[in-house]
Amino acid sequence: MNKHYVIGIDMGGTNTTFGIVDKRGVILYRDQIKTGGFESGEAYADALCASINALISKAEASGDLIKVLKEEIKGIGIGAPNGNYRTGTLDKAANISWAKNKVVYLADMIKERTGLHCTLTNDANAAAIGEREYGVAKGLKDFIVITLGTGVGSGIVSGGRLITGHDGLAGELGHNIVRRYNGRPCGCGRSGCLETYTSANGVARTAREFLEIKSDKPSLLREITDRPITSKDVHDAAKKGDEIAIEVFNYTGQLLGESFADFLNFSSPEAIILFGGLTKAGDFILKPLVKAFKENTLCVYEGKTRILFSGVQKENSTELSDEEAAILGASALAWES
Amino acid sequence: MNKHYVIGIDMGGTNTTFGIVDKRGVILYRDQIKTGGFESGEAYADALCASINALISKAEASGDLIKVLKEEIKGIGIGAPNGNYRTGTLDKAANISWAKNKVVYLADMIKERTGLHCTLTNDANAAAIGEREYGVAKGLKDFIVITLGTGVGSGIVSGGRLITGHDGLAGELGHNIVRRYNGRPCGCGRSGCLETYTSANGVARTAREFLEIKSDKPSLLREITDRPITSKDVHDAAKKGDEIAIEVFNYTGQLLGESFADFLNFSSPEAIILFGGLTKAGDFILKPLVKAFKENTLCVYEGKTRILFSGVQKENSTELSDEEAAILGASALAWES
Repeated sequence: MNKHYVIGIDMGGTNTTFGIVDKRGVILYRDQIKTGGFESGEAYADALCASINALISKAEASGDLIKVLKEEIKGIGIGAPNGNYRTGTLDKAANISWAKNKVVYLADMIKERTGLHCTLTNDANAAAIGEREYGVAKGLKDFIVITLGTGVGSGIVSGGRLITGHDGLAGELGHNIVRRYNGRPCGCGRSGCLETYTSANGVARTAREFLEIKSDKPSLLREITDRPITSKDVHDAAKKGDEIAIEVFNYTGQLLGESFADFLNFSSPEAIILFGGLTKAGDFILKPLVKAFKENTLCVYEGKTRILFSGVQKENSTELSDEEAAILGASALAWES
Repeated sequence: MNKHYVIGIDMGGTNTTFGIVDKRGVILYRDQIKTGGFESGEAYADALCASINALISKAEASGDLIKVLKEEIKGIGIGAPNGNYRTGTLDKAANISWAKNKVVYLADMIKERTGLHCTLTNDANAAAIGEREYGVAKGLKDFIVITLGTGVGSGIVSGGRLITGHDGLAGELGHNIVRRYNGRPCGCGRSGCLETYTSANGVARTAREFLEIKSDKPSLLREITDRPITSKDVHDAAKKGDEIAIEVFNYTGQLLGESFADFLNFSSPEAIILFGGLTKAGDFILKPLVKAFKENTLCVYEGKTRILFSGVQKENSTELSDEEAAILGASALAWES
């Protein structure tokens, strides 16, 4: 039977959302479960696959919506924290209680419980494959996706193939050290990682620093006293012309642009694509990024690489949430396999 | 007829050396011409191919040595400055008068003049393929070769394939910026590139700087007053226990180790291989390099990646010159094609 559908699973630290997706990238059926609170990987896989199998039954029995038969589903793709493409495992996923300090053979567990082939990788790699299938990387063979969310991740495609490394764990560009001295402490135990400056948390951290250093400068952000400042606050303030907020994005964009110029030296991609929550800041982050990128690009690469925003959110008929874009990204892995 | 031989060409700024190589990596016949002094790429190709064709005739007519028939030669591989793997061109090779600010279709010209298939890439990529064929990268699918010579180059193999980028010019890790502020001016027009610190020239530059900063410290290097200090001088002094010379290598190794740790985040290789003149410094450079590398490696990659010296020089029966190793590296390209 022809395989017209795939299942995409976006496993986050809090929720796991999943959906049945058609070839055009439309999520026909979806559901979610909590990621945490399980005693073991097996218990999580039991709960997840019970929900997936229920969703498939619903799709098979559908009267109103498009009927999807299990035999028409090609497979399952998952984007997961610390997901290892080679082994289909979660490798010491620090933010998930039942996966901490362990290797969890999640892809195998899901295959056992659903009877469907399952491909697993980290969320940034899933985003990269998603961009190629449904987004702005259509037709590109050499590109890098940088995810700007709670952390900073990367998915690298070179010569048409995902770079996975000898251990399946390649693509941690968020942990390139961009400030060698007096760098910000990073969750990884080192200091000065790109992620500490250019993730959503990094932006909030920069805002707090700037408010302190430039203590004589008025800012809308000073009015937020009852809770920690978020990157969304900074964006909201920037839209109102707040100078400090704009400087925060200038700084963030500059660090990204400088780093991106170094990335060219590695794989000379046609495009570097920004994905995730921070991209909502639009030109506030893009303009300083492109400026620093151009200033730091080695001459042989000048003018060859485009900086783009993710197309998965935009090119679909209705505006997709980050979560939906992540389901699509993960689902695209299943077409690959 | 079985193809038992290949031709390797190592094109340097001064000399172009080439040889007929057998499957075990023995250079059976070799010759060389000057690289410079020609009016055009065509004139260079004429002279080079006249010499190559003469070498083939000599091999075909050989009475004493192994007879090699032209029909037994699989093809030609060239490692060349600014060599573009995709197009077979030299792209604006700044150090060669007839190739400056131009694109020279050298692979095509050689094919026309010899009748042999010709694969061209930059010298670092040729070194990488050479390591896989004849050196320490045998059997490895994910590794990076870093060439430490007049400049710093890199050849990156990921998932068994050379990373060439969309334009054929990937792999310029020597131009990653390692000192963002007050970095040393680089030949590329920017400042702070890895190459300005860790090439042979970079080592000599560090020596001059250290002699000035530590002006009260005695050093054998202070005795060299009639000519500029070279990296070989620094090595010679280090062997005699000269403190400043040893500090120069410590600094060089540290910068390399810090950079190598960032390279892991990109392609997670099994090995990073050092190639070229500076490797003669041995432990003087390797020990501080490995120390800094370990200190800066992201935890998921800890203990997985070996730092090795090129095996092309060592594993052959007699010790090979850098030039001979480069011929072998280039020749290995021809087996690839």
